[in-house]
Amino acid sequence: MPKKFTVTPWEVSGEIDYDRLIKQFGVKALDDRLLKRLEKHAGELHYFLKRKIFFSHTYFDTILDEADKKHKFYLYTGRAPSGPVHMGHLVPWIFCKWLQDKFNVTLLFQIPDEEKFLFNESLTFEDTHKWAYENILDIIAVGFDPKKTKIFLDTEYANVMYKHACRVAKKITFSTTKSTFGFTDSNNIGEIFYTAMQSVPAFLPSIMENKPTYCLIPCAIDQQPHFFMTNDVAPKLGYPKTATILCRFLPGLQGMHKEGKMSSSIENTTIFATDSPEKVRDKINRYAFSGGRETTEEHRKKGGNPDIDVSYQYLTYFLEDSKKLKQIYDDYKSGKMLTGELKKITIDVINSFLKEHQARREKAKNQIEKFMLRG
Amino acid sequence: MPKKFTVTPWEVSGEIDYDRLIKQFGVKALDDRLLKRLEKHAGELHYFLKRKIFFSHTYFDTILDEADKKHKFYLYTGRAPSGPVHMGHLVPWIFCKWLQDKFNVTLLFQIPDEEKFLFNESLTFEDTHKWAYENILDIIAVGFDPKKTKIFLDTEYANVMYKHACRVAKKITFSTTKSTFGFTDSNNIGEIFYTAMQSVPAFLPSIMENKPTYCLIPCAIDQQPHFFMTNDVAPKLGYPKTATILCRFLPGLQGMHKEGKMSSSIENTTIFATDSPEKVRDKINRYAFSGGRETTEEHRKKGGNPDIDVSYQYLTYFLEDSKKLKQIYDDYKSGKMLTGELKKITIDVINSFLKEHQARREKAKNQIEKFMLRG
Repeated sequence: MPKKFTVTPWEVSGEIDYDRLIKQFGVKALDDRLLKRLEKHAGELHYFLKRKIFFSHTYFDTILDEADKKHKFYLYTGRAPSGPVHMGHLVPWIFCKWLQDKFNVTLLFQIPDEEKFLFNESLTFEDTHKWAYENILDIIAVGFDPKKTKIFLDTEYANVMYKHACRVAKKITFSTTKSTFGFTDSNNIGEIFYTAMQSVPAFLPSIMENKPTYCLIPCAIDQQPHFFMTNDVAPKLGYPKTATILCRFLPGLQGMHKEGKMSSSIENTTIFATDSPEKVRDKINRYAFSGGRETTEEHRKKGGNPDIDVSYQYLTYFLEDSKKLKQIYDDYKSGKMLTGELKKITIDVINSFLKEHQARREKAKNQIEKFMLRG
Repeated sequence: MPKKFTVTPWEVSGEIDYDRLIKQFGVKALDDRLLKRLEKHAGELHYFLKRKIFFSHTYFDTILDEADKKHKFYLYTGRAPSGPVHMGHLVPWIFCKWLQDKFNVTLLFQIPDEEKFLFNESLTFEDTHKWAYENILDIIAVGFDPKKTKIFLDTEYANVMYKHACRVAKKITFSTTKSTFGFTDSNNIGEIFYTAMQSVPAFLPSIMENKPTYCLIPCAIDQQPHFFMTNDVAPKLGYPKTATILCRFLPGLQGMHKEGKMSSSIENTTIFATDSPEKVRDKINRYAFSGGRETTEEHRKKGGNPDIDVSYQYLTYFLEDSKKLKQIYDDYKSGKMLTGELKKITIDVINSFLKEHQARREKAKNQIEKFMLRG
C-alpha cells in the first residue's frame, strides 16, 4: 500500500516518498547531465548534490544556460519567522551560500513576516518581528557576502513589494489558488493574497536590472506550489520563468516515519541553531530514533540499520567527509559500531558545526544593517 | 413597479431611489436631531446638509459625542485615480473641507492607486500614477489645510499600510467578501484583498494617536459596503467603530434617469474640474437634460419641471444662495424662466466655481510635497 504523506507550503506530514513527490508535483529529478554541467561551472559538486539532498528542480537548465553565456542570475530564498531556526532550515541556506560563492551572484532573502501572521491564528506581528530579528542572525551566520545579499521583511519593504504583488495578483484568480493550495471560502483574504508576495522576489532581478534576469530559488520542496504560480504569471508580465532547486526535509529526531520534517513546534525532537552542546547531546541521546537492535549482543550479531537511523541521517547532512561517512555506514550496518558510538559521532559533528555557527551568529548582531533592504 | 438600480463600490447605475437605498444598505437618514447637534458645534449647517445632498450616515452620533467631550476625531476620504476629476468627485471633498474648518481636525486622504489597477483590466500603474498626480492637484485645490491634511498613495505608503491591511485581512474570509461585494471564484486575488487596504485609514487615527480615536468618513454612498467590513473588524482589533456621512451622486448631464452618477468615462455628459468655460457652456447647452416644454409657448403656459432638470439639479449642488435657488425653482416651475435662461445661470455658477478652483489647482503644483505622506 503506498505510504500516505502531505506536502504543502503549510503542512508536511507522513513518510515522504520523494520519487512519488517528484511525479506528483511535476518537477524534475536532478540528473547526472545537469550535475555535470553544474560541476563544470562550480569546479566541484557540493555534497548535498552528491547525496541527493538537493534532488529535484524546475528550469535549472535555464540557469546553467545563463551561466554558459556568462550572464548574471540572482538567487532567492526565504524564511517565514514563526520560531527559532533549526538545523533543517540551515540546509538550503548553506547551499545558497555555496552557490553565491561559486557563481558570485546576488541573493535576495525574503522574510515574509506577514505569512505566518496570516496563517497562524495565535501569532501577532510582535511575535513575527521578534523571530525575524532572531532568524536574521542565523541567516547572516551562514556566511553570506554582505555586498551581495539583501534581506528584507515583507512589511518593511512593502513600498516596493506591494505594488508588484498587485501586478502578480491581477493575474491570479481565487479559483487558481483553490486548486493550487486547496483554499476554501473560509480562508482569510490575506492568506489568499499572500502567494503574490512570495512571487515578487522572483521578478525583482528583472525589475532591479531593468532587463530580463533569471532567478534560481534553492528551497525545500514544500515551497514549490508557490513557484508554479509564479511561473504561470511570469510570461504574462514579460519575465523569464523562475528556476527552483529543491531539497528534502531534514527529519525530526523521532524519525522519518513519524513526522515529515523537523519542526520548531516539537521542542524535544528538534535541534535548534542556538542549542547548547549539552542540549544537543541530551536530545540526540534521548530522542534520536535508532536503527540499532534491542540488545548489544543482537546488534553485534545482526548489525544496525543506518537507513532508518536518524543520527546517521543527520551525518549525511552535516558530515562533509564522504569516506568517513561510508565507513560509519558500513560499521553500523555490520554491527561493529553500536548506537551509542554513532550518536557520539553525530553529537560531535553537530556541536562542532554549531560552535562555529553560534560564534558567527554573535558577530552578526553588529552586521544586520549591512544586509537589510528597506523600501 | 419599483425602479431598478445598482449601487456597489464598482458600479452605480439606474435611477437611484435613495430612500430604498438607505433601507437596502442598513444606513440611517440624517435626521433633524443630528443636524441640530452638528449645527451647535459648527455654528451653521452647510447647504449640502440643508438640501439633503449629504443625507445618510452610520454612527455619526458617536462623532458628535466625541465633539461634545472635546475629543479630536479624524476625517478620512479617498479618490481612486483612474481618470480626471469631475464635479461629482468634488462634492464630498468640499464637505470634508467644511468639516475640517469647523472642527479643526486632521484629514487622511487615501489614493488607492492599486484599486483601479486591480479592477480595470486595461489600466496600468503608469496610468493610475499619472492620474494620481493630476487628481492630487484637484484635491489640494479644494483648499485643505496642509498642516492637517495627509495625502498618500497606497503603494507609496505601503510600508505602513500593508502590515495593518494584513491585520484586517486576517479577520475577513473570502466568504464575507462574496456576500458583501458579490465576488466569485473568478475575481483576482488582489481584488479580494483590496478591501483590507480601504479599511486601514479608518484605523490609522487610533494607530497614529496610540489610543482609541474616532474616524468620520464623508463619501458617496457607493463606498459604504467597504466600511461595513471595516466595522465588522474594528472591535476584533480593539478600534472604535468608524462613522460615515454619505452623499448622493451628482447626476451626469444626460439626467438622473439615464445613469446613476456622473462618470469620467462618458466625456460629453461630464463636467471635468479642468474644463474650460467654453467647454462647460457647450456641454450644458448641448447635453444637459432639460425639464422644459417642447415649445417656448407651452413652457410659458404650463411651466417647466426643475425636479428632473439637470441644470437646476447642478445649482442645488453649486449655488450656495438658497433664496436665489428658491426663486429659480419657482420661476422655472411657473414658466417665467425658460430653459435657456436656467442653463445660462448654471453655466455662470459652474464657471465661476471652476475659475477659482483652477487658479488654486495651478498653485497646487508647488504644494504637493507639503501634503504627501510617504512610508
